[in-house]
Amino acid sequence: MPVYQAPLRDYQFVLDEVLNAYAQFAELPGCEETTPDLGAALLTEAAKFCQEVIQPLNQSGDQQGCTLSDDVVTTPTGFKEAYDQYRQLGFPAFDQDPAYGGQGMPATLGLAIREMLGTANWAWAMYPGLSHGCMHTIHAHGTDEQKNIYLPKLVAGDWTGTMCLTEAHCGTDLGLLRTRATPQADGTYAISGTKIFISSGEHDLAENIVHIVLARLPDAPAGTQGISLFVVPKFLPDDAGEPGLRNTVSCGSLEHKMGIHGNATCVMNFDEASGFLIGEPNRGLQSMFTFMNTARIGTGLQGLAHAEFAFQNAHAYAVDRHQMRALTGPVEPDAPADPIIVHPDVRRMLLTQKAIAEGGRVFAMYTGVYADLMQKHPQADVRELAENRLALLTPILKAFLTEMGLEAANLGLQCFGGHGYIAEWGMEQNVRDARISTLYEGTTGIQALDLLGRKVLGSRLDLLKSFNSEISAFCKEHARINSPVRHQIKKLSELNKTWMKLSRKIGMTAMKDRQIVGSASVDYLMFSGYVCLAYFFAMSSVAADKGLAANNDDEAFYTAKLQTAEFYFRRLLPRTMSLAKTMLDDPAVLLQMDADHFRTGT
Amino acid sequence: MPVYQAPLRDYQFVLDEVLNAYAQFAELPGCEETTPDLGAALLTEAAKFCQEVIQPLNQSGDQQGCTLSDDVVTTPTGFKEAYDQYRQLGFPAFDQDPAYGGQGMPATLGLAIREMLGTANWAWAMYPGLSHGCMHTIHAHGTDEQKNIYLPKLVAGDWTGTMCLTEAHCGTDLGLLRTRATPQADGTYAISGTKIFISSGEHDLAENIVHIVLARLPDAPAGTQGISLFVVPKFLPDDAGEPGLRNTVSCGSLEHKMGIHGNATCVMNFDEASGFLIGEPNRGLQSMFTFMNTARIGTGLQGLAHAEFAFQNAHAYAVDRHQMRALTGPVEPDAPADPIIVHPDVRRMLLTQKAIAEGGRVFAMYTGVYADLMQKHPQADVRELAENRLALLTPILKAFLTEMGLEAANLGLQCFGGHGYIAEWGMEQNVRDARISTLYEGTTGIQALDLLGRKVLGSRLDLLKSFNSEISAFCKEHARINSPVRHQIKKLSELNKTWMKLSRKIGMTAMKDRQIVGSASVDYLMFSGYVCLAYFFAMSSVAADKGLAANNDDEAFYTAKLQTAEFYFRRLLPRTMSLAKTMLDDPAVLLQMDADHFRTGT
Repeated sequence: MPVYQAPLRDYQFVLDEVLNAYAQFAELPGCEETTPDLGAALLTEAAKFCQEVIQPLNQSGDQQGCTLSDDVVTTPTGFKEAYDQYRQLGFPAFDQDPAYGGQGMPATLGLAIREMLGTANWAWAMYPGLSHGCMHTIHAHGTDEQKNIYLPKLVAGDWTGTMCLTEAHCGTDLGLLRTRATPQADGTYAISGTKIFISSGEHDLAENIVHIVLARLPDAPAGTQGISLFVVPKFLPDDAGEPGLRNTVSCGSLEHKMGIHGNATCVMNFDEASGFLIGEPNRGLQSMFTFMNTARIGTGLQGLAHAEFAFQNAHAYAVDRHQMRALTGPVEPDAPADPIIVHPDVRRMLLTQKAIAEGGRVFAMYTGVYADLMQKHPQADVRELAENRLALLTPILKAFLTEMGLEAANLGLQCFGGHGYIAEWGMEQNVRDARISTLYEGTTGIQALDLLGRKVLGSRLDLLKSFNSEISAFCKEHARINSPVRHQIKKLSELNKTWMKLSRKIGMTAMKDRQIVGSASVDYLMFSGYVCLAYFFAMSSVAADKGLAANNDDEAFYTAKLQTAEFYFRRLLPRTMSLAKTMLDDPAVLLQMDADHFRTGT
Repeated sequence: MPVYQAPLRDYQFVLDEVLNAYAQFAELPGCEETTPDLGAALLTEAAKFCQEVIQPLNQSGDQQGCTLSDDVVTTPTGFKEAYDQYRQLGFPAFDQDPAYGGQGMPATLGLAIREMLGTANWAWAMYPGLSHGCMHTIHAHGTDEQKNIYLPKLVAGDWTGTMCLTEAHCGTDLGLLRTRATPQADGTYAISGTKIFISSGEHDLAENIVHIVLARLPDAPAGTQGISLFVVPKFLPDDAGEPGLRNTVSCGSLEHKMGIHGNATCVMNFDEASGFLIGEPNRGLQSMFTFMNTARIGTGLQGLAHAEFAFQNAHAYAVDRHQMRALTGPVEPDAPADPIIVHPDVRRMLLTQKAIAEGGRVFAMYTGVYADLMQKHPQADVRELAENRLALLTPILKAFLTEMGLEAANLGLQCFGGHGYIAEWGMEQNVRDARISTLYEGTTGIQALDLLGRKVLGSRLDLLKSFNSEISAFCKEHARINSPVRHQIKKLSELNKTWMKLSRKIGMTAMKDRQIVGSASVDYLMFSGYVCLAYFFAMSSVAADKGLAANNDDEAFYTAKLQTAEFYFRRLLPRTMSLAKTMLDDPAVLLQMDADHFRTGT
């Protein structure tokens, strides 16, 4: 059976020692009392729930999957009881608005909890996870009446939410969507159409499900400028606010997926279903973009989750499994063979997984803090800075971390040799579950275009310059730190300059040949991700160096931190060399082949 | 439904135009009449079988899987009928010894057929595939009586074979195996023990199954020097050579795997089963190594297979799926969106898959020709050169091509966006099926140690020097070819020198610090793989250049070849830059962390 221990010590380190997050929370109205002790206590409670309640359902949930019968979706055994407990413990309300029953805790801590939930059981975590987008949409764009009807129920976790965007013929290109919304005499709308890939679209965990649906009004302009947002509840709230009449929205079928079997991915049929307009007509897509950045942090967490799970289980196997001798002679001469953790290449794989999980965790928490600042800081300039930082970093976070998480999941499996391919160890499920993460919420390619085209070049490099200055100030501040961290700072400083230089170069080329943006984009995004992680590892190293100097009793932890950072700088960061080269290559190399000539070999 | 068209034009190009394979077959006794026309006819017949008979069973076989009931394993619907047809068409005998009913065709063509079979349906292809090792073992080490009993049945495909090596506690480290062989008064042996991961271990396709089993004699020395080989048939052949008494070997259970569901991966219980010694006592592992190189080419083919499948299906989707507009404006202004093949990053993904499939195909056929030379060439020096070449290249071929095949399978899925995650498209099955390939028949890490430790350093670089000279002679010969191929030759020449330089450097370091071998090994292997592929692409480019100059009507094919090679050199080959850097890194970076400190964050 796979294992999972929440990385509580690491969270303390990242939040308190690396990012100084609690001091920043203290400046946010409503979060003043979120001290490190309180934070640690909350995360500990969440960890207990993750380890004891939902992690044990992860493998059985995968094997059992969801079933649809007569309009009813049944989730795997134990999922509903776990959700009831989750609700009773108050988790859905954790970082929500107190005006609607929320606890108003920092979003950063909410993200930390979501990482733990997701590592323990990603498929399960998607049921409450999907509610976030729904709550956010109604909170930001709903009328007071809509907020009062839906938010208390969603915040309490009594109801869950979904986001209904994709249709069979359009995913990335939402401008093509066809679902219709016809105005009715009573001010409501009749929604008709079919949505696919609707995560948590139908299930038996909650008494009602609130769908946020993208649809077109009859007079809507074509394309993305003609999309409106509607709330379409499964049961129409009655006068007391309780689930009343059954609406004409139903699950037509469940998708057969590679993984996340415990989550119901539904085809949803809307058959003149009653819907209520949210926000202004034809402005639906713009409304959604307002919180796309924060939503994408949540998806980026999946990279961490699968890396952490891979790492913990592969490590447990590597100290237990004995096979062959160390290259320098027996390490356990009395045993028939040495544990495989003695082999350098097994360690390379383990350290890669560990580096992705730990570096990725700093990255996610760093953006989490900015999300809190953006939403809650009293000063407009701080909010603006935070928004700009998030605009730049979220496509990197989402795409880079999920790509790296997939690599980590695969390396975790690889550490098990042939046993990794067998279901009982849980490593192949981890790979299958991880595989969705580079696809949904915008593929890696889409994130890369968003980063390079919209965020970097679209801001005339301003967003990047601002972050670049932050990194360069950090490097200056720590330029004289003890070796070997000094080597890291130096390397980071160089790469930070290269990042800017490459961006300028692509910008210049793009003026003559727009295709360079698509041709360079994914290499550029991955390069950016490696530089970001170098920054976060350098920050970790500085903090670990301080921790070691303080001479407390946690030497092993800090030493491992420094060693992991060194591994990152020396074994993973050099990948930037190749990326720096290939991103600048002539787009013609990709474009010159006639579309009909690709398959002339058959 | 997924599609598959065998790459027959590409095979003609690779065998005839790039490798001049038929001229080499002409020098091999028994293969003199294998002309290009005959080869093409045979491959066309095989292609028809792959496309029409087994490819349609690929998806249903995955969904249905195998079942075990009362000792009987039932394969998916249609598998048996397909196998009967395969047998009737004479495919099992294709490249086998005519002395036992074989057709004696070149192994190279046999490999080409195996690639097509595997691309069409890897799980199915493993049933006849596993017979190869079994036949090879008996042919090389069996007594005349054993050969006469088993080979005609195996060559005809009436019986199939297995290789029973792995036990629960040992896979890589076969020295630990425990299965016992107790001599009986009649000269036979009673075999007792449990083997796991036995592909095609039990099934309903053939009337008998011949297991090759590694076991220990009672007085055997410990470790790898005490392993003997036995043949253990499911039904003991009677005096007429037909299946007689049921032997006490049976399938205890079927493994639940990530993929290749159509193939029965069995736990095999040997309960005092009657076995017959093959070769000398205690020399079993050495006997197996004699054909390990050729066996690994077969596994390397899996990389090609999944890359080719990914490519063909992703290409079909990319020309059909319309989403968003090209960065430079609408390409199909009358359609609601452009086909996604207009997007540079989609093309980058497609070309990566195509390059892996096509470059990998030259690689596999190149080693196939050497396998034929090694087995059949009349001159001892040619046989020796071929053996040396294979010794060096097979770990690269196996590990590099399967790693790249996995990347290609994942990119193929990625081209489909969210749809790639859904079973019906077949892309997620392709990833799941591909995932085993870097694990079995020696993991990537094991291949890398074999390459760097045993083959390169173990031969004091002699094996590498010989291949290096071949490449450098090729570069010299074509140094003045037309651009842009000239650029490729120049790049290859540089990298060829770097390869040697890196090898020397690691060799020098290894004298002081043996751990560098493990620390560098996988990066070294991947670097080597990229250089090999550069060589094979350069060879292809030279041949395509010649083809274009001949001014025949196949301009599209040759142009696409040159463009694919250019893509490889410019977008994939630069990965060597990072690998060259990381492989030389101090092994201490991997080794310094205390095994107990890895998980100090939890």
